[in-house]
Amino acid sequence: MSGIVVQNIERADSAVIADLESCGVSTVHEAQGRTGLLASYMRPIYAGARIAGSAVTISAPPGDNWMVHVAIEQLKAGDILVIAPTSPCEDGYFGDLLATSAQARGCKGLIINAGIRDVRDLTEMNFPVWSKAVFAQGTIKASLGSVNVPVVCAGAPINPGAVIVADDDGVVVVPREKAADVAKAAKAREANEADKRARLASGELGLDMYKMREKLAEMGLKYV
Amino acid sequence: MSGIVVQNIERADSAVIADLESCGVSTVHEAQGRTGLLASYMRPIYAGARIAGSAVTISAPPGDNWMVHVAIEQLKAGDILVIAPTSPCEDGYFGDLLATSAQARGCKGLIINAGIRDVRDLTEMNFPVWSKAVFAQGTIKASLGSVNVPVVCAGAPINPGAVIVADDDGVVVVPREKAADVAKAAKAREANEADKRARLASGELGLDMYKMREKLAEMGLKYV
Amino acid sequence: MSGIVVQNIERADSAVIADLESCGVSTVHEAQGRTGLLASYMRPIYAGARIAGSAVTISAPPGDNWMVHVAIEQLKAGDILVIAPTSPCEDGYFGDLLATSAQARGCKGLIINAGIRDVRDLTEMNFPVWSKAVFAQGTIKASLGSVNVPVVCAGAPINPGAVIVADDDGVVVVPREKAADVAKAAKAREANEADKRARLASGELGLDMYKMREKLAEMGLKYV
Amino acid sequence: MSGIVVQNIERADSAVIADLESCGVSTVHEAQGRTGLLASYMRPIYAGARIAGSAVTISAPPGDNWMVHVAIEQLKAGDILVIAPTSPCEDGYFGDLLATSAQARGCKGLIINAGIRDVRDLTEMNFPVWSKAVFAQGTIKASLGSVNVPVVCAGAPINPGAVIVADDDGVVVVPREKAADVAKAAKAREANEADKRARLASGELGLDMYKMREKLAEMGLKYV
Amino acid sequence: MSGIVVQNIERADSAVIADLESCGVSTVHEAQGRTGLLASYMRPIYAGARIAGSAVTISAPPGDNWMVHVAIEQLKAGDILVIAPTSPCEDGYFGDLLATSAQARGCKGLIINAGIRDVRDLTEMNFPVWSKAVFAQGTIKASLGSVNVPVVCAGAPINPGAVIVADDDGVVVVPREKAADVAKAAKAREANEADKRARLASGELGLDMYKMREKLAEMGLKYV
Amino acid sequence: MSGIVVQNIERADSAVIADLESCGVSTVHEAQGRTGLLASYMRPIYAGARIAGSAVTISAPPGDNWMVHVAIEQLKAGDILVIAPTSPCEDGYFGDLLATSAQARGCKGLIINAGIRDVRDLTEMNFPVWSKAVFAQGTIKASLGSVNVPVVCAGAPINPGAVIVADDDGVVVVPREKAADVAKAAKAREANEADKRARLASGELGLDMYKMREKLAEMGLKYV
Repeated sequence: MSGIVVQNIERADSAVIADLESCGVSTVHEAQGRTGLLASYMRPIYAGARIAGSAVTISAPPGDNWMVHVAIEQLKAGDILVIAPTSPCEDGYFGDLLATSAQARGCKGLIINAGIRDVRDLTEMNFPVWSKAVFAQGTIKASLGSVNVPVVCAGAPINPGAVIVADDDGVVVVPREKAADVAKAAKAREANEADKRARLASGELGLDMYKMREKLAEMGLKYV
Repeated sequence: MSGIVVQNIERADSAVIADLESCGVSTVHEAQGRTGLLASYMRPIYAGARIAGSAVTISAPPGDNWMVHVAIEQLKAGDILVIAPTSPCEDGYFGDLLATSAQARGCKGLIINAGIRDVRDLTEMNFPVWSKAVFAQGTIKASLGSVNVPVVCAGAPINPGAVIVADDDGVVVVPREKAADVAKAAKAREANEADKRARLASGELGLDMYKMREKLAEMGLKYV
Repeated sequence: MSGIVVQNIERADSAVIADLESCGVSTVHEAQGRTGLLASYMRPIYAGARIAGSAVTISAPPGDNWMVHVAIEQLKAGDILVIAPTSPCEDGYFGDLLATSAQARGCKGLIINAGIRDVRDLTEMNFPVWSKAVFAQGTIKASLGSVNVPVVCAGAPINPGAVIVADDDGVVVVPREKAADVAKAAKAREANEADKRARLASGELGLDMYKMREKLAEMGLKYV
Repeated sequence: MSGIVVQNIERADSAVIADLESCGVSTVHEAQGRTGLLASYMRPIYAGARIAGSAVTISAPPGDNWMVHVAIEQLKAGDILVIAPTSPCEDGYFGDLLATSAQARGCKGLIINAGIRDVRDLTEMNFPVWSKAVFAQGTIKASLGSVNVPVVCAGAPINPGAVIVADDDGVVVVPREKAADVAKAAKAREANEADKRARLASGELGLDMYKMREKLAEMGLKYV
Repeated sequence: MSGIVVQNIERADSAVIADLESCGVSTVHEAQGRTGLLASYMRPIYAGARIAGSAVTISAPPGDNWMVHVAIEQLKAGDILVIAPTSPCEDGYFGDLLATSAQARGCKGLIINAGIRDVRDLTEMNFPVWSKAVFAQGTIKASLGSVNVPVVCAGAPINPGAVIVADDDGVVVVPREKAADVAKAAKAREANEADKRARLASGELGLDMYKMREKLAEMGLKYV
Repeated sequence: MSGIVVQNIERADSAVIADLESCGVSTVHEAQGRTGLLASYMRPIYAGARIAGSAVTISAPPGDNWMVHVAIEQLKAGDILVIAPTSPCEDGYFGDLLATSAQARGCKGLIINAGIRDVRDLTEMNFPVWSKAVFAQGTIKASLGSVNVPVVCAGAPINPGAVIVADDDGVVVVPREKAADVAKAAKAREANEADKRARLASGELGLDMYKMREKLAEMGLKYV
């Protein structure tokens, strides 16, 4: 089943992707019905980055990074690489040379359910990565995997061309077909939150703002 | 047993709390006989914060953050929220809206044995959090828990009104009744350390300063 | 078998150590045949440090840091302390007083397969540490261990006098006898990478630069 | 997106399921190209069980087992329940009463990416379970989930009606559409192994049987 | 704060303890409002044991089992030893000699938030243990701890004399003062379950037996 | 550094190995000064086995089991295979075919810091395995490793020909040069324990038998 490279994948509209990027992981996750989060162990190598882009996926054998070279050729500006080993692995598949090559093609960052290395260089290059581990362990180039096939990455199914959103809160995937709707819902959610934030900042309580007191009393909450 | 909100809790003296804050986690932990530490997986979302305050505790169902709204009403200036789910959970109970509300009431930070989200916003707001995970996973508002009841949080029993001290080293809890004594012992310890630090910095060895050589020889230490 | 302090250990040449430091963990690991890495859970307490030095090793009982005082006397300028408990432990063996003493003797940093505390102070002192945990839990001084004996630390065997290289990618150990050869190979590798980096940055693909296309086709890679 | 019960799902042919059951997890996994394994933390509550059946899937909120009652009505004889919480959870969703009900409808066992309880009763009932944890923690019935929708369980995507195979080696899922082909390949593999096993048992070496010596020499293996 | 042995602790009534033992962990946990469970990593060394008894607690330094000898003198027939290290530890505090001594005094088993060894001997002796790990790592006898003081063990606060119930589902603690009430509630629960079990075994659905259909429809559950 | 097969290794005397086997892991570990234990996550696939034998070691690439075939040729009757991947991996390197082959050459069992599969078959064959995981994930045969070179396995350094002892308590390694002395010390320890066991079984307290009371009082132990 491996050894396949899908060359032409569909991508979401760039304005939609920009909207999703501006909303961030937590808002997007809520806006699409609390689905699509990758596991919490996926952490950024440095704080403060927020990116969104189309997934170019790699299904890779454990400890073998050969397919990364193949995948880089498939990248378009604004894409995000997604590497999912076929069995659990924390080897360092990716470092500064590959990042240089990916960045030269417009890649915005990397999501990898394995290890990453050269994190100081990647930080200086402003190439953000969300990974399971930081680990210098080298990989080999001996077996085929596939590029732009559906993968499961850190517990989340990801199709090629799906929109990835990643920031300090983690990583969420939005199916391409739903991206426009989710972006709209996320933007609406954000607009709605600005007013709430102002009211809460002024000291109004959530108990009052959301009218929770009656329901809580009804359920039996006792103040003593 | 849940569904209770204790409204008036006793708090430690604010000068005592300030002393504990100035000493920090490691010194306070030593000063109270090496007790009260929360598990080492409780990590700050950003480096450099050091806070102390009175615990307003929340015993919450897994994946349900309704009681946070209830607890915020109970906060007084200088308090610290403590959220302990009743079964292991890493969902993101708390984000920027709740932080805005808590901060508006003078809350200094949050200790949560679960997940946290909106960490970029919280960092910008200067609202420190020590958590088990960073995870955007949303929670519901369906079941009651309790506020200001005794909880066990990350392995440590915490009563409402206990003094929480948190910094880059982790989190320690000081029982309210002992807070004044512990603060005094911590301050004494700190004073004592200044002299030692100076001597060590000048090159004097701990072996000599603590007069360890004889005891070590007696126990059989061999230099070869 | 414990209770031994080896006083005179051999160290690698300082120019060799400087070369290894300049190359960093990932390059050195590759240059010595992908061996010598410590486990990926060994993380730095702050980002950006890169050090190399000769290992002064401590085999310590769990929860007992007495031998650290003994080891500090054995330090020479440029050395790195390596603490390996004899059973798994995450207690905080080391804090700002010990760091002050070690730094006064020229120690460049600490590698510890256990906990560390006073991380804010250590960060301010510019004393880097790679540890398994940050944990304020105090230790005792009741039992003997050994100094400058062979240890296994986070999965890697380390002899006293071996060269430790540590940076944001983790920690690698280079046997003293091989240090010169590894440094040479690492330097050569680095020189070789500069050219590759430039070509990749200009948009050349790894597929072409490394002439991978034919081999991949031969193995059956299909483009669809 | 939740609150849906799909009532009529397609199932694989029972003869195909029986073949997959007779081959077991490792052989089936190999026969379908090394895909479909659930994470290794999914362990059986007792040794020696081997089952295969059609998946009736449950997407459940964390700590809420209401949908299990809904799913039991959808079970047909020979089915296997698959419970996947929407965020990580190890609460005990399922015990002897639910097992009694499921078994009364012909359910062969349970795969749950969470906790299980009443394991002594389940063992006596001969109702096998593969779970992430054994944990008595009770759950609530407050929120909707869905039944017979696609889920990701312990890292593997599972559609309703997919064939689950589980034994002491873990759990593997076979897409319904491929079940017949995979069963055939697994059976062929098994037949092929009988001969190999006999030759190896008689002392013939894999090196000779698989004619590996030449390839190894060519790659540079040295005997010293 | 350590170095204390409380000699005369109150124990629950033996009939109450027998009732709790007959109900088992999951039922007792439910009967006391879903509280008191120890962490799910506390696993029995062999399957099939179910015990209840009064806790004789040990607060022990990490890697130091001296207090176990002190605690054994405090055991009465039917008691259960509870060992809680003051920092995380998985050393093997307890083996066949200590079990022989404890069993000679009528001790029914051990709960230990650390390691256990000699598990084959303990199994043959029919001395059940619930532990965090099986690990042969030896301990020392150098420092004092305390006996029969309140401890936190695997996340649960346990007072001396509290009733411990342990079986294949894990471990639960019942405060002594509530033991009689909890036993009564557990027994009632058990009686109530017999009828339910019979109805479910006969094929009646939980949906009907618990009258859930209307509520589910009201909440929006859709059958498709 | 890989690609080497050492053909003639020295082994310990078979009578010494038999003595070590009869004493078991915990006693041997104590007898050699509390060293040599592998990590506690190394667990047997079935209870009750106890073996000792000479280590035939395999340093294997992650996810590649080719060297196992090479190593089997090097086995002599009574040997134990030790597989150590060069980076963390839990793939299933070894199953019933390899066990058949190894057993045909007299191999007593396997120690593997990775995954194992076909555990039901291995159990029926009475071929014991201590592993990090049970996982059916297949491996490839693409890269060289080495046979009978020094490895670090689950934290313990193991030379080829070292004596491995494994039972329900875990795994310990005894350097070949020390095997005779350790066996003697273990046997003496065992003889000494028989008398202690009888005294403790008769109700004598360890406090009296080991004359601990005075020392405890001197250190400040208080009975209240």
